[in-house]
Amino acid sequence: MLLALAAILAGAKLGGDVAVRLRQPAVLGELVVGVILGNLDLVGVGWFRALTTDASLGILAEIGVLILLFEVGLESTVREMLKVGAVATLVAVLGVVAPFALGWGVGALLLPDHSAYSHAFLGATLTATSVGITARVLKDLGKTRLGEARIILGAAVVDDVLGLVILAVVAGVIEAANLGTTMSYGAAALVVVKAGVFLAGALALGVALSPRLFGLAARLRAPGVLLATALVFCFVVAWLASAVGLAPIVGAYAAGLILEDVHWKAFTGRGERSVSELVQPVASFLVPVFFVLMGMRVRLDAFAHPAGLALAGLLTLAAIVGKQACALGAVGRRMDRLSVGIGMIPRGEVGLIFASIGLGLTLHGERIVDEAIYTAVVMMVIVTTLVTPPALKWSLERGARARGTGET
Amino acid sequence: MLLALAAILAGAKLGGDVAVRLRQPAVLGELVVGVILGNLDLVGVGWFRALTTDASLGILAEIGVLILLFEVGLESTVREMLKVGAVATLVAVLGVVAPFALGWGVGALLLPDHSAYSHAFLGATLTATSVGITARVLKDLGKTRLGEARIILGAAVVDDVLGLVILAVVAGVIEAANLGTTMSYGAAALVVVKAGVFLAGALALGVALSPRLFGLAARLRAPGVLLATALVFCFVVAWLASAVGLAPIVGAYAAGLILEDVHWKAFTGRGERSVSELVQPVASFLVPVFFVLMGMRVRLDAFAHPAGLALAGLLTLAAIVGKQACALGAVGRRMDRLSVGIGMIPRGEVGLIFASIGLGLTLHGERIVDEAIYTAVVMMVIVTTLVTPPALKWSLERGARARGTGET
Repeated sequence: MLLALAAILAGAKLGGDVAVRLRQPAVLGELVVGVILGNLDLVGVGWFRALTTDASLGILAEIGVLILLFEVGLESTVREMLKVGAVATLVAVLGVVAPFALGWGVGALLLPDHSAYSHAFLGATLTATSVGITARVLKDLGKTRLGEARIILGAAVVDDVLGLVILAVVAGVIEAANLGTTMSYGAAALVVVKAGVFLAGALALGVALSPRLFGLAARLRAPGVLLATALVFCFVVAWLASAVGLAPIVGAYAAGLILEDVHWKAFTGRGERSVSELVQPVASFLVPVFFVLMGMRVRLDAFAHPAGLALAGLLTLAAIVGKQACALGAVGRRMDRLSVGIGMIPRGEVGLIFASIGLGLTLHGERIVDEAIYTAVVMMVIVTTLVTPPALKWSLERGARARGTGET
Repeated sequence: MLLALAAILAGAKLGGDVAVRLRQPAVLGELVVGVILGNLDLVGVGWFRALTTDASLGILAEIGVLILLFEVGLESTVREMLKVGAVATLVAVLGVVAPFALGWGVGALLLPDHSAYSHAFLGATLTATSVGITARVLKDLGKTRLGEARIILGAAVVDDVLGLVILAVVAGVIEAANLGTTMSYGAAALVVVKAGVFLAGALALGVALSPRLFGLAARLRAPGVLLATALVFCFVVAWLASAVGLAPIVGAYAAGLILEDVHWKAFTGRGERSVSELVQPVASFLVPVFFVLMGMRVRLDAFAHPAGLALAGLLTLAAIVGKQACALGAVGRRMDRLSVGIGMIPRGEVGLIFASIGLGLTLHGERIVDEAIYTAVVMMVIVTTLVTPPALKWSLERGARARGTGET
């Protein structure tokens, strides 16, 4: 375990170094190192493969991604997010509808013997953007304060919510079909309401309560109070998110949005470091664990089956092309629409969670998601994850150049 | 899990605040909060009790205590430790022999129906100082660079080694007695040699290699390289320690000793923060998890049995009085001998590990350590852990006052 952690950290930094030298974001290097380590069993070294299911590393990785989203959220405020809120929502809706439809189409085309429910399920796995990768690329490139960055991150939060609503509705419809009835609108509405109440409530309450919370914390005399208070806030909001059925990272991001530098003036005033400075070392320890582990979960031998490869290929294409609909929603003067579309590409945990839920669902005894579909979803997650860092870097630089020319 | 982490962190800081207000080290507050949370099941709230066996929290706590020892080790160098090496070894030997003899005596007195092997085992559980508590108290009071602090920490490393040797020898003797033979001197010697080679080897090799390691690391271009390199170094040495049968915290402390500020001149020269500054936020997140969890493992209802209470009481007395033999070894002008003796009092994981190994050993079908003995050992660990913070604070302040008077 200790040795594994040491190997992962060392590998992450070596991979990050190579990526940076190749002018790519460090996260790409961490993912590739993970892919290499996780597939060393193909050449006889099975030790790292076994680690991919290690619960302790999984916990560290999970805390790592929470802290990353919290850190990214810290760099914006709720007010700044509300400014892009309408655009982000439009981007999110387009970016959910298009991949959902395309994924459904791919299912109908390649899996004609499966039911329409399977096809709908396949579409649902394509809806939610995995904001971790994009957030990390934006961080690596120092672009988190860009308007486009806020739109992408805001839209990723919204499409996570929409994706969960679709999942809940599709699963409810299947369950009802199994019983020979149809799903009640009330049950469907409940999912939507819970998610909406959480987001609006967390942001409103958080903004009202957090100054008071940090004011009280500033009176405590124990060492390390500021970081502890910030992390407690982050973990509680993340837990609330998961309690209403959203991904915990949505909560962590919301927590980061709520907190502002002014809240810890009492601490920084007496010479303490700010929350961003305190969180950074924790992040630089735990975040690479998440990305290396994500890389390690990639099975290169899964790419060896030609039948599945077609499904995986078309599904990936649907995922990438579908999210480009987001660009249409990114209205605004001098908007870098291409970057918004590309930033929304990566799919991650939520897609995989959907797929694994599907593995457990049956309709009249037939599984909604079988092994072939599951492998295709995993491949889609991998490819979208790996293509985003270089593509987004390219498009952001292109956008900056275009803007630079436009302004001279 | 997230909520548990948030509750533990919040509780730790609140408890720490109360302790600091009562002029006690913050760690005492964290332990007491842990005791309260862990025993809430006595008033019907069983949630926290269930957390004491949570593997994820256990991992975070374990990394926390490693990072604490690493941090404490960073504040001294190998050269400074070697200066106190002879005294520390003398202190350690006295602090192992006396409690071992007293513990054996308590066993012979109160458990006449058990074999001499059980009594020896009881003595062995008293040998190893749990340096985590003392290190934390010294840190809370800002005394880690004191000569006495180095002696205590060095002696704690040495007595850990001696304790493991005794355990291995006692266990070997029991095993041999079971087979009707006696233990080979070769097997006993191997344990000693492995531990000695590790300590000497790690310190010598570490001092030689670490400048080169950080020199190479300074060339890497990924973000967060310095902290990652330091943690990798810490984890690898801790793993090596556990690989030779020592406690991982011994390795983490050795790793901290080896590293010196001069190693990361290349990093700090270009404006990056030093390892101590980077490790501190990570520690302030993970270290309280360890201490709160240690407090939570205390069962207050175990104190309700009068028969066990006598054994526990005498064993605890043996543990505390026995370690005062250390004071005899703390030779040197103006040495604060009382603080050295008190600093060596806390027993922790190693004692518990010994006891649980004893639970699994049998001699002619009879268990070497039964439930009553185990409970007594757990109580001894709890009491020594709880009395040390206030006692050490008192004696260090007394020592500082005495010195102050002597110098004017």
